[in-house]
Amino acid sequence: MADIFERLLKNYGPLGQHRERAHGYFAFPKLEGEIASRMKFRGQEMIVWSLNNYLGLANHPEIRKVDAEAAAEFGLAYPMGARMMSGNSNHHERLEAELAAFEHKEDAILLNFGYQGIMSAIDTLCGRHDVIVYDAESHACIIDGLRLHPGHRYVFKHNDIEDCEKQLQRATQLIEKQKSGGILVITEGVFGMAGDQGKLKEIVALKGKYDFRLLVDDAHGFGTLGETGAGAGEAQGCQDGIDLYFSTFAKSMASIGAFIAGPKAIIDYIRYNIRSQIFAKSLPMPIVLGNLKRLHMLQTMPELKNKLWENATKLQEGLKARGFDIGKTDSVVTPVYMKGGIEEATAMVMDLRENYKIFCSIVVYPVIPKGHIIYRLIPSAAHTDEDIQLTLKAFTETKEKLDAGAYKAEAIPDMAEKA
Amino acid sequence: MADIFERLLKNYGPLGQHRERAHGYFAFPKLEGEIASRMKFRGQEMIVWSLNNYLGLANHPEIRKVDAEAAAEFGLAYPMGARMMSGNSNHHERLEAELAAFEHKEDAILLNFGYQGIMSAIDTLCGRHDVIVYDAESHACIIDGLRLHPGHRYVFKHNDIEDCEKQLQRATQLIEKQKSGGILVITEGVFGMAGDQGKLKEIVALKGKYDFRLLVDDAHGFGTLGETGAGAGEAQGCQDGIDLYFSTFAKSMASIGAFIAGPKAIIDYIRYNIRSQIFAKSLPMPIVLGNLKRLHMLQTMPELKNKLWENATKLQEGLKARGFDIGKTDSVVTPVYMKGGIEEATAMVMDLRENYKIFCSIVVYPVIPKGHIIYRLIPSAAHTDEDIQLTLKAFTETKEKLDAGAYKAEAIPDMAEKA
Repeated sequence: MADIFERLLKNYGPLGQHRERAHGYFAFPKLEGEIASRMKFRGQEMIVWSLNNYLGLANHPEIRKVDAEAAAEFGLAYPMGARMMSGNSNHHERLEAELAAFEHKEDAILLNFGYQGIMSAIDTLCGRHDVIVYDAESHACIIDGLRLHPGHRYVFKHNDIEDCEKQLQRATQLIEKQKSGGILVITEGVFGMAGDQGKLKEIVALKGKYDFRLLVDDAHGFGTLGETGAGAGEAQGCQDGIDLYFSTFAKSMASIGAFIAGPKAIIDYIRYNIRSQIFAKSLPMPIVLGNLKRLHMLQTMPELKNKLWENATKLQEGLKARGFDIGKTDSVVTPVYMKGGIEEATAMVMDLRENYKIFCSIVVYPVIPKGHIIYRLIPSAAHTDEDIQLTLKAFTETKEKLDAGAYKAEAIPDMAEKA
Repeated sequence: MADIFERLLKNYGPLGQHRERAHGYFAFPKLEGEIASRMKFRGQEMIVWSLNNYLGLANHPEIRKVDAEAAAEFGLAYPMGARMMSGNSNHHERLEAELAAFEHKEDAILLNFGYQGIMSAIDTLCGRHDVIVYDAESHACIIDGLRLHPGHRYVFKHNDIEDCEKQLQRATQLIEKQKSGGILVITEGVFGMAGDQGKLKEIVALKGKYDFRLLVDDAHGFGTLGETGAGAGEAQGCQDGIDLYFSTFAKSMASIGAFIAGPKAIIDYIRYNIRSQIFAKSLPMPIVLGNLKRLHMLQTMPELKNKLWENATKLQEGLKARGFDIGKTDSVVTPVYMKGGIEEATAMVMDLRENYKIFCSIVVYPVIPKGHIIYRLIPSAAHTDEDIQLTLKAFTETKEKLDAGAYKAEAIPDMAEKA
């Protein structure tokens, strides 16, 4: 007889296998001090490129003031209970109305957390005869939503419109055969790893040939893209073709929670049927008030988005000018692609942190193919010119060392935090 | 060709079908003012029995002080990012250590939200050869976790140990046949609707005959049951037999977030593999600090739990003495079972609210069988003797009217909130 626990402990998984050497350094690091472009890591000040604090709102004095005042006025317990039972308020409804107006939709529903929110929304929208057509690089929360779906799901190659159309044809045929069901297409406004925008305009154009509804997760586009910051749909001029627009508050809004905006009748349907919201607590009031303030600043202070883009452009152009491969990003997300083994990658990250005081995230095998390294830099409005220049210098020098084989090592060093 | 949206709008679902008359009154009501046993509903002060503020911590001055101070010190954005990437802190780790010690487990992992936390934990623990054996009345978040499970799941009749054993036999046979996989049993410490404790002691005793691991969701037991408030496992003297102990912070702790406590190696495994935590933001710092304070008060102020039980006992004994059927609750959750149609139920709730100023939740068809009504009263340490006496009086008088047919009505009245 096998035991679940015994089996789990035989293989800690792609990330867990390194935990004894990595914990507290490569995984679960602690960034301390005020949220800014420079924070402390193990006692040393570092330039930080790992926070989705795009607009620099996280620690903006006006945000800090509202967060403090709202918590003082309401406490963090208020309201108690799920929206439907005892957790509703005028402020929750006001934030919904303002988000809907900002996204040019009739209505919006607040979600107590983005991950379970979109998962549960997908579950709410689709029945067993519906077919979900989705981008292969969709975020984990979308994939988990798909896993709840009892019907068919057809994946299309990442941002490949030809393949998307092929899957729409398959889905249409199946539905005609079934004589029931509809199609939901799911993609993202900006793919958070590579930084490329979803081809929303091209997908919306397919509505001329196929019947489907479109749900877009715009976590990284909200606040960073489009004339007013309304996101990737606005940037691509196809917001009306997005039936349901989702974003978390965890990025540009520097908060928690999320929302979905869309037609009033459908948002109402979701409101009365979405399990993760009906059976779980409402978003705390200070977080609602804090998000109202963040939304107002996002709407009235275009200088924040301008500064973000100024920094992103400097960083991206600087990297490209120095011969770095930053792939096909057309958002502020800045990946840097290199080649090297996992031991080299860890040695390089350590050099960046210990000697250059640059803190950024890397992705290595087995998350991506063996021999590849991806750095992921998240610029923000809070970064300075000096931050960018020091980072470009550090990348140039460490890349030279990498190419010269200076980081070749036998094993991942033991950097675990000692109790 | 069918359209997903068109199909949805044909049937708004069990709760949504009444939304035009119910919104803002029977569903999505707004309780205003400080969280207390009396709050305002549509401008009138009511005695409220709908909040899981068991220990009265939500609005306790010491909690309000810590919530305000922590939000002033850190803001509500801090830390940015997932625990694994950039959202870890000493305070998060301290809360984990204290929760583990309180639950007599080696380690604990914080969860950014309870619903997605337990869902994702079930997903993390079980592979396709594992069998999940679970109680039929498990909460929606457990059911959604089961829906992610690619393997078999066997349900046992609610709290029916004979049937539980039968399902364990089936599961054991299947696993022997498969020559791989293990068994995870999932139940609750307290079932939140009927208030009966899960038969944890009896299930743990089955470990003598069958090999399985036990996961308990003790959302309503944490803080309310057991000598020290450690929950249903402590109350039943079988905490050691619970392999993984889960509770949300949304009830006794009057907060958000959750945790799972268990053996260090398994918690570590979960930490490095649980999707909803790896791919979503960490619990905000003021909520972590607020929960540390709540945990300390829960541990050092037994008078809160004593007062809760004093109130619960008065309410439950008072209802029983007046001939009410409160079922088989052995927790503070107090259901009141009545018979009547849905129109009668709504008329009775309106009478209770409008004339007796009692605000409580009801459950009717189609959530439960036609002709049945369940009131669900949640006592707390914050309720007063007067609250209880007025409520007993109101229930007695409205029940007499119900039995006399006074609430018979043609339709549900239109009580929707007008803009």
